[in-house]
Amino acid sequence: MKATVMYAAGDVRVEEVADARLSDPTDALVRITHSCICGSDLWPYRSMGATEDGRRMGHEFVGVIEDVGADVTTVAAGDLVIAPFMWSDGSCDFCREGLHTSCRHGGFWGNEDNGAQAEAVRVPWADGTLVRVGAEPDDALLASLLTLSDVFATGHHAAVSAEVTPGTTVAVVGDGAVGLCGVLAAKRLGADRIIILGRHEDRTAIAREFGATDVVAQRGREAVHRVRDLTGGDGAPSVLECVGTSDSFATAATIARPGGTVGRVGVPQDAKLPHADATFMRNISVRGGVAPVRAYIPQLLPEVLEGRVQPGRVFDSTIGLDEVAEGYRAMNDRETIKPLVRP
Amino acid sequence: MKATVMYAAGDVRVEEVADARLSDPTDALVRITHSCICGSDLWPYRSMGATEDGRRMGHEFVGVIEDVGADVTTVAAGDLVIAPFMWSDGSCDFCREGLHTSCRHGGFWGNEDNGAQAEAVRVPWADGTLVRVGAEPDDALLASLLTLSDVFATGHHAAVSAEVTPGTTVAVVGDGAVGLCGVLAAKRLGADRIIILGRHEDRTAIAREFGATDVVAQRGREAVHRVRDLTGGDGAPSVLECVGTSDSFATAATIARPGGTVGRVGVPQDAKLPHADATFMRNISVRGGVAPVRAYIPQLLPEVLEGRVQPGRVFDSTIGLDEVAEGYRAMNDRETIKPLVRP
Repeated sequence: MKATVMYAAGDVRVEEVADARLSDPTDALVRITHSCICGSDLWPYRSMGATEDGRRMGHEFVGVIEDVGADVTTVAAGDLVIAPFMWSDGSCDFCREGLHTSCRHGGFWGNEDNGAQAEAVRVPWADGTLVRVGAEPDDALLASLLTLSDVFATGHHAAVSAEVTPGTTVAVVGDGAVGLCGVLAAKRLGADRIIILGRHEDRTAIAREFGATDVVAQRGREAVHRVRDLTGGDGAPSVLECVGTSDSFATAATIARPGGTVGRVGVPQDAKLPHADATFMRNISVRGGVAPVRAYIPQLLPEVLEGRVQPGRVFDSTIGLDEVAEGYRAMNDRETIKPLVRP
Repeated sequence: MKATVMYAAGDVRVEEVADARLSDPTDALVRITHSCICGSDLWPYRSMGATEDGRRMGHEFVGVIEDVGADVTTVAAGDLVIAPFMWSDGSCDFCREGLHTSCRHGGFWGNEDNGAQAEAVRVPWADGTLVRVGAEPDDALLASLLTLSDVFATGHHAAVSAEVTPGTTVAVVGDGAVGLCGVLAAKRLGADRIIILGRHEDRTAIAREFGATDVVAQRGREAVHRVRDLTGGDGAPSVLECVGTSDSFATAATIARPGGTVGRVGVPQDAKLPHADATFMRNISVRGGVAPVRAYIPQLLPEVLEGRVQPGRVFDSTIGLDEVAEGYRAMNDRETIKPLVRP
């Protein structure tokens, strides 16, 4: 089968690899119909050291089950399924608490011989991991279903972590696909005013569609001043950090209202949270992290199926598997927000 | 009157200064009966650059009102009062929300001409700031009342911020007076198991009195391993950070259970929160900051007056105002946990 392998920063190849196959009795084998490139894939794309064996890429997918192991009971061949970007057993204490990302048997795609920017993928702990769609959606709906695999559910985690409540004011740092989905999630949770920090007009246009009431195109200190101006001088009670750099963290902490909460889902790149001083005197909470997507899919799926939210709007391009290298380049150069991959 | 002035690191003097007096119509003038030295006073004691005019010290006190300004209505001359370590107007939006530390008119003692390691002090916004005791307590009770000014209420803020719930497991980083009060606060909130990280036996003995079930005397990685051993490998759902250094933050984040919360009240010294990576993958929340003591005093006061909690146990020495310089030295050298000052 064909699969995407990254060998070094900027070196992404689609190659013929050994077919994905069942290994454990709890596995499923899924033929991928929809995958995509994640903002987090761009970090290795920019910085990964050269490796001889390469690294399989891709962790977001929708597909059809081709086969299941002997112990799998809740999904079966022919089922259309959504996969969270991590697998989880669904039965350990952390899974029961809704923190599937800390599952006792959890793990990531995008390593060893298992990545989702490919024709097929092995799914460990299929019963715990996969969610049956239970419908026959059209193409537009499928794009939105794919966002439940990561980007919309991650935006939702940012909003939940930032403690967005009905009627509140929310600021969103980052106009990537996660930031846009954060806007949508904040709107869905009833935020009254949603300020997005972003300066790419194609993106902020979608943000407005998703519910953003204000766009702050300035950067750094000017952006902070602008958000403060928009919020009576105090900042926003809920801030969604959807980038992951020290600068974006510092901005997020600084535009939070005293006593407010930063919900952070941007994968940390340079590893520092905001200076403790920036949060200490104003009692800013910092919550969130890697999104327990599996916990959110059942909550969000009905609204997506009914078309009440359309997070699939973040996909502004569709490519074939053979075009994945070009997709990385275009996304990294901000020519596209997020490319959908049809293997 | 006599007051404490710090001129440089290690240079603390008690001097004759101009008498404290009313300035604004919302002021009260308080004759101090009980003050103390705070762990946060030790930071300038260790690092303050030399200044010609010096800095007035002290921000925790109990005293008797001597006079009030024309606009003061809720307290009067003769009242025994507790002061939080910051003043606040009691009427702005932040005060109404219980975040008195972000009061629109708030401020700190321990600057300009106003410090509480002195015979008397001017209290801005007396109606919003001061809490009448409404009783005639004995000496032991007065020591406990004084902890409501900062240290016990700050320990309580750590426990509240760390989301301590009945039956849970709590780890406390720091065996200073705040850490000890954090143990007491966690116990009061119903924690079942309380692990304190500390290696001074005089302190951990009080921690055990206050409700600690386990003492971890190791440091660094060994302490982390020990806490993990004590918690089934996972760490504690609630961690109280009561120190404020990068190391203590890193320890606190690392011993938190996935999905857990660090309640941080240690005044940040080297300004970095834990590496974002340490908290991101495990969804560790970091909450807290400077404690809105004024919000907590009314909740905690009845239990202190009834003797149900005895946070005054953290005072293991009592000195006169003339001995304050020696008190700083002894506290800095860890010869005393926290000296009570009787002007």
